[in-house]
Amino acid sequence: MKKFALTLALLLTGITLSACGSTDGLSNSTNNKSSKGTTQLTGQTNNKYYQGVIKNGHYQTSKSSGVTSQQTSNEYNTKSFQNGLIDISKKEFSTKKYALQEGQYLSTATVESWLGRKSKSNPKGLNPKSNGSTTPNGRNPLYLSQITEQDFMTQNNKKLKLSGVTIGLAINSVDYYKKEQYGATFETDISNATVKAEGKKIANEVLARLRKKAAFKDVPIVIALYKQAPNDSLVGGNFFSYSVNNGKATSVDKWNAIDQKNYVFPILAGKSSPNSNDVDAFNNFKSQVENFFPNLSGITAQVQYTNGSLSGMNVNINTQFYSQTEITSFTQYIQEAAQKYLPANTPIDITIKSTDEMQSFLSRNANEKKFNMHIFNSY
Amino acid sequence: MKKFALTLALLLTGITLSACGSTDGLSNSTNNKSSKGTTQLTGQTNNKYYQGVIKNGHYQTSKSSGVTSQQTSNEYNTKSFQNGLIDISKKEFSTKKYALQEGQYLSTATVESWLGRKSKSNPKGLNPKSNGSTTPNGRNPLYLSQITEQDFMTQNNKKLKLSGVTIGLAINSVDYYKKEQYGATFETDISNATVKAEGKKIANEVLARLRKKAAFKDVPIVIALYKQAPNDSLVGGNFFSYSVNNGKATSVDKWNAIDQKNYVFPILAGKSSPNSNDVDAFNNFKSQVENFFPNLSGITAQVQYTNGSLSGMNVNINTQFYSQTEITSFTQYIQEAAQKYLPANTPIDITIKSTDEMQSFLSRNANEKKFNMHIFNSY
Repeated sequence: MKKFALTLALLLTGITLSACGSTDGLSNSTNNKSSKGTTQLTGQTNNKYYQGVIKNGHYQTSKSSGVTSQQTSNEYNTKSFQNGLIDISKKEFSTKKYALQEGQYLSTATVESWLGRKSKSNPKGLNPKSNGSTTPNGRNPLYLSQITEQDFMTQNNKKLKLSGVTIGLAINSVDYYKKEQYGATFETDISNATVKAEGKKIANEVLARLRKKAAFKDVPIVIALYKQAPNDSLVGGNFFSYSVNNGKATSVDKWNAIDQKNYVFPILAGKSSPNSNDVDAFNNFKSQVENFFPNLSGITAQVQYTNGSLSGMNVNINTQFYSQTEITSFTQYIQEAAQKYLPANTPIDITIKSTDEMQSFLSRNANEKKFNMHIFNSY
Repeated sequence: MKKFALTLALLLTGITLSACGSTDGLSNSTNNKSSKGTTQLTGQTNNKYYQGVIKNGHYQTSKSSGVTSQQTSNEYNTKSFQNGLIDISKKEFSTKKYALQEGQYLSTATVESWLGRKSKSNPKGLNPKSNGSTTPNGRNPLYLSQITEQDFMTQNNKKLKLSGVTIGLAINSVDYYKKEQYGATFETDISNATVKAEGKKIANEVLARLRKKAAFKDVPIVIALYKQAPNDSLVGGNFFSYSVNNGKATSVDKWNAIDQKNYVFPILAGKSSPNSNDVDAFNNFKSQVENFFPNLSGITAQVQYTNGSLSGMNVNINTQFYSQTEITSFTQYIQEAAQKYLPANTPIDITIKSTDEMQSFLSRNANEKKFNMHIFNSY
C-alpha cells in the first residue's frame, strides 16, 4: 500500500509524455515540474491528430459540450459534425503548429441561450421568434441546432496562447417539434436554399459577437456551416460552406463552398446514386459475401464523396455467428473479398458485429492495397 | 440492372481467392471451376489463423454450434473456451498443413443427448443420473456444459481429407439449477478435484464413442478439458488438461497439464493476486489515466497467465465522452500512457467504449513497444 502511494505521488508530480511525431515549434509540455497551475500538451503520436491541452494535470474538456437545441438528435449527425469540423480546422491550423483546446470561451449558458429562440426573456437567441403558428409550414422553424467551438493554441516562451478558433454551426434540414409536451412529433422541412441563407446570416451574427470577446478580438476565426441529416438517416449530414475571417473582420466577406456528400449503401430504390461503378462494386461485394456465409443479418456502408469522388467508406456487417472460429474465418474471407471487390485507393473501415458487440474489424488507408485485420479476443 | 445480373453470374461461377500466407501443401481451392459439389478453402492471410472450409460455395458452419446444457451461460466462458481450444489445436495441427472445418460429425441431436443427464429416455447422457435430491450438496450436479468439435483437414489430389479432430469439453465449476420452472436459481459448487476427475472420466467415454465412428476410427483425437468460470465472472474459465490420442487408442493414457489462469484487474480485496508487479503496473496506469481525464466510468482488464507468466491483457475503458476530439485526445494519451505504465513484452488490447459503442482501440503484439491505435469514424 505504501509502495503504491509513493508511486502515485511520483506520478502526480512529473507527468511527461514525450511526443513521437515531429512537432514544429510545439513542445509537449510547457512546465513539467508540477501539475498545479500549469498547462501541458497531451503529446502527439501522429501528425493526423492535434495535441490536446492539459490544465492542472487534467485534460480540459469543453465548456459547452453536449448542448444541442434538439432533444432527439441523430447521433450520426453529432459524430459527422465533429469529425468534419476537425478536418476543416486542419486546413487552416496545421496539427504541427497548433494544439487543440476544447472550446473554453463559450459557456454552456451562452450556447443554450444562442441555440434558443429570440424572445423577451432570451434576447440573444439565434433562432427566430415564434410567430404563434404550430403548422409545419406556417411556423418559424428552429434553424440552428448545434454550436461547437474549437480553440487553437500556439506556444511561446513555454506559454500557450490562443491563436485561432473554429466555430461549427449545425443547421437543421428538418426541424422536429411538438405541439404539446409529450405529444406527437411534427416536422418542418427546411429547403436547401433556406439552410444556406439562414446559416450564413447566423454565422455573421456569431462572428460579430465573438469579436466583442477580448480573447477573439483579432485571432483568425473559421466558421463552418453544416446541414444536419434527418433523424431517420443512417449517415450524418454534411458541411457545405466555411469562411476564414482574419484580422478584425466582424462580418464574413467570402464563403468557400464544400462539396461533400454522404450516402448509405446499398442505395434504396428511388434514392439518387452518386456513382454507378462504386455502387456496383459495393453490391458485388455484398452479394458475394452474403452468398458465401450464412447467418449474416446485414451489410451496409456509410460512404462519403468529396468533390464528386469517393473519399471514404465505413462498411458495417452484422452477423449471427456462434463461434470464434466462424468469426476468424469470416474476417479472413472479408480481408480478401474487400480487396478484390471494394473500390481501390479509398480509405475503408469494415466492422463486424454480432449481438451488438464488435467482433473484428478491418481497415485500409488511402492508397494501400491490403486491409489490416483485428479480431477481438476475450480470456 | 442487366449489368449487375451479369456481374453476379460471373461471380457465382468463379470464386478464386488467392492465399497470401505461405501454405505448406494446402492450396486454397480444390476446384475453382464451379462452386457446385466442390470443396474449397477460404484462403489464408496470416499463419496465425487456419483456412476454413467452403462447401458448394458456402462456408460450412458447425453441425452443433450454440448447444449448451445451461440456458444462462456466461458469454466470457463461451469465447474463452473457443479461443483456448483453437490455441490447443494449433499445437498439434499446424495452420500451415491443416485447414479447419467446423465440426461436421457430431450433430445437434447427438450433442444435446450427450449434454443431458443419463436416463431411461437418454441412455447416452454424459451427465449423471438424477438421484432425486434438490439440495445443493445432496443432488448430482451437471458436470458437462459444452462440447465443441473442430475437424482438421489435409489436402491430397485436390481432395480434402479428415486428418485430425479436437474435442473441447467444458466442465462446470458451479452448476446452476432451478427446483421448478421459472423458480429461483440455486447453485451446486463443484470442487477442483471433482472437475478434474469428472472431466477425465467423461473424456474417456467420449474418446471411446468417437472411435466407433468410421471417420474417427484412426485419426489423432485431441481432447481438451476446460473449467467454466461462475456466471458472475468478468473473465472466462480456463483449460487445465489435454490429451493427444493417436492411432486407434480408445482410452486416454496420458494427460498434459495446462497451467493457464485468467484474472480480472483491478484485483478485488480478498481475491488472490497473480503477480504484484503486474498488479501495480495496472493500478498505476489506471490511477494515472483516471486522474488525467474526467468522465471515465471504469477501467478494468482481463489478464491471462500461462505457466505463471503474464501472457496477455485486454483492457476495457468505459468513458462518457461527448465529442470526437475528446476521444481522439484520450486515445493518443492512452497510446503513450499504456506504453509507459503497462507491462512490457505482453500482447495487449485496449478498447475504449462510450455508451456501449467502441470508439477507438489500441493494440500491441508480444515484444512490440508501440501500440497501434484506431479511432472509429462516422460520416
